[in-house]
Amino acid sequence: MNNNPLKIGYLGLGIMGLPMTLNLLKAGHTVKVWNRSAHKAAPALAAGTTQGATPAEVAGASDIVFINVTDTPDVEAVLFGPNGVAAGAKPGLIVVDNSTISPVATREFACKLAGLGVAFLDAPVSGGDIGAKNGTLSIMVGGDEATFEKVKPVLAAMGKNIQLLGPVGAGQACKACNQICVLGNLMATCEAIKLAQAMGLDVQKMAEVVSAGAGGSWQLQNLGPKIAKGDLAPAFMIDLALKDLAIVLDAAQKSGLDLSGTAMAEQRLKQAKGKTDGRHGTQAMITAW
Amino acid sequence: MNNNPLKIGYLGLGIMGLPMTLNLLKAGHTVKVWNRSAHKAAPALAAGTTQGATPAEVAGASDIVFINVTDTPDVEAVLFGPNGVAAGAKPGLIVVDNSTISPVATREFACKLAGLGVAFLDAPVSGGDIGAKNGTLSIMVGGDEATFEKVKPVLAAMGKNIQLLGPVGAGQACKACNQICVLGNLMATCEAIKLAQAMGLDVQKMAEVVSAGAGGSWQLQNLGPKIAKGDLAPAFMIDLALKDLAIVLDAAQKSGLDLSGTAMAEQRLKQAKGKTDGRHGTQAMITAW
Repeated sequence: MNNNPLKIGYLGLGIMGLPMTLNLLKAGHTVKVWNRSAHKAAPALAAGTTQGATPAEVAGASDIVFINVTDTPDVEAVLFGPNGVAAGAKPGLIVVDNSTISPVATREFACKLAGLGVAFLDAPVSGGDIGAKNGTLSIMVGGDEATFEKVKPVLAAMGKNIQLLGPVGAGQACKACNQICVLGNLMATCEAIKLAQAMGLDVQKMAEVVSAGAGGSWQLQNLGPKIAKGDLAPAFMIDLALKDLAIVLDAAQKSGLDLSGTAMAEQRLKQAKGKTDGRHGTQAMITAW
Repeated sequence: MNNNPLKIGYLGLGIMGLPMTLNLLKAGHTVKVWNRSAHKAAPALAAGTTQGATPAEVAGASDIVFINVTDTPDVEAVLFGPNGVAAGAKPGLIVVDNSTISPVATREFACKLAGLGVAFLDAPVSGGDIGAKNGTLSIMVGGDEATFEKVKPVLAAMGKNIQLLGPVGAGQACKACNQICVLGNLMATCEAIKLAQAMGLDVQKMAEVVSAGAGGSWQLQNLGPKIAKGDLAPAFMIDLALKDLAIVLDAAQKSGLDLSGTAMAEQRLKQAKGKTDGRHGTQAMITAW
């Protein structure tokens, strides 16, 4: 499939990273993986990846290294910690960060890597575990155009709508906008379901007909039926959503911007975490009422 | 197209009623219209409807009469005012109300009509003027199943997702849930756009990539580009949205339900109305910041 196949590294095989890695394999790429808990790489190895002992080892063997870990300090550790990417990187390496982290820290990381001759793109994604499995993610990219053009064909194995939004950090800035919509639409979904229940409507039918009109959203269409069934299993965990909302509200504060709706969604999620468990899916927001 | 064509009446040719009437004509029905401002019927007449002088006249000549007017008192006047539907209706008539009004008043109207041998469905719609023109509206119906089955083939000329949600009033209850999503998703859309602008992103590109992921909504996809261009022309007017939100919040209050997110969206719309004009489209919510 690829005349001059690239050597790809993927660091972080969580609920998103694993299916994204599998789609890279399906597209014909050679992939070497690393995960903090090494045994969790088993499904990737079974599908045909190799495994590195450290991020440094994977970086040394790759043309492009993807990172998909939880938070800003995790990306920092994978990049610059002992046996991190920076310790193994050869000049010319491209690092692509699929994690959702701070736009400000992102610019610092890119700057340090540039000093080693390593290019960087921030490329957070949206579309949930479903989008990761089906290769239909939205990918929001920040970085320079030349690097973007080199990486875009590889990103196409994992996502459908791939946009370069500006210089390094712009991908994370766009992801912050995305999370405002994700959690704000979820709050509206929960309020609609609470009223539907109060008025004796079938929640499943309500979600179906509202999804098809001007009230439609990914959240209502995908999480409405889960809420109707009482299924709180995580696709996107409350704890991760709260991490993302902290990034969003920090960015808003730095801009002097009033995001009261987003702040209220954060409060509902915190209530739900207190009442149930932060490891539930975000649809557990419904328990806040 | 119809072996036994029905005689349809349509009362109220506004931004939604007119394109819905045109789709009834396209489906091969005979349609007689009435509008409070008679001259606004011109495009319907040009397309092949006839015109009645009063709701009573239209009702007397029809098998099914649709109503699409602004608020609860308007529906009451069209039904029970001088020369209203009740004055001209023959037993066996079916009245279908496409307006968005109070579920409680809806049940009262249906009860009074039943006394005259007239059947009633509440059938509010969603999907905006675009959905009305393209015949892709969501139609949320309340009423008995036998009446619904008779009217469903006619509704199919105007909408794609047509659901019977329960007895009379259930359509309006579902529309209330729909409006929670419409205005809540719009508030999230506006907050995302404000942050995008503060962080120097291209709003159009942000809206495009976020629309394709888990943050996607009809509101972002359809109104995001309008906001990016500063286009405040009404598809759905602020004044009408505020009328709908009053119905939603009244229903919530009667159920003892906390819809703080919806109440905040109402507040944003009121701010926007104060700063600009209630006859702008709801996307003018962006001016509240």
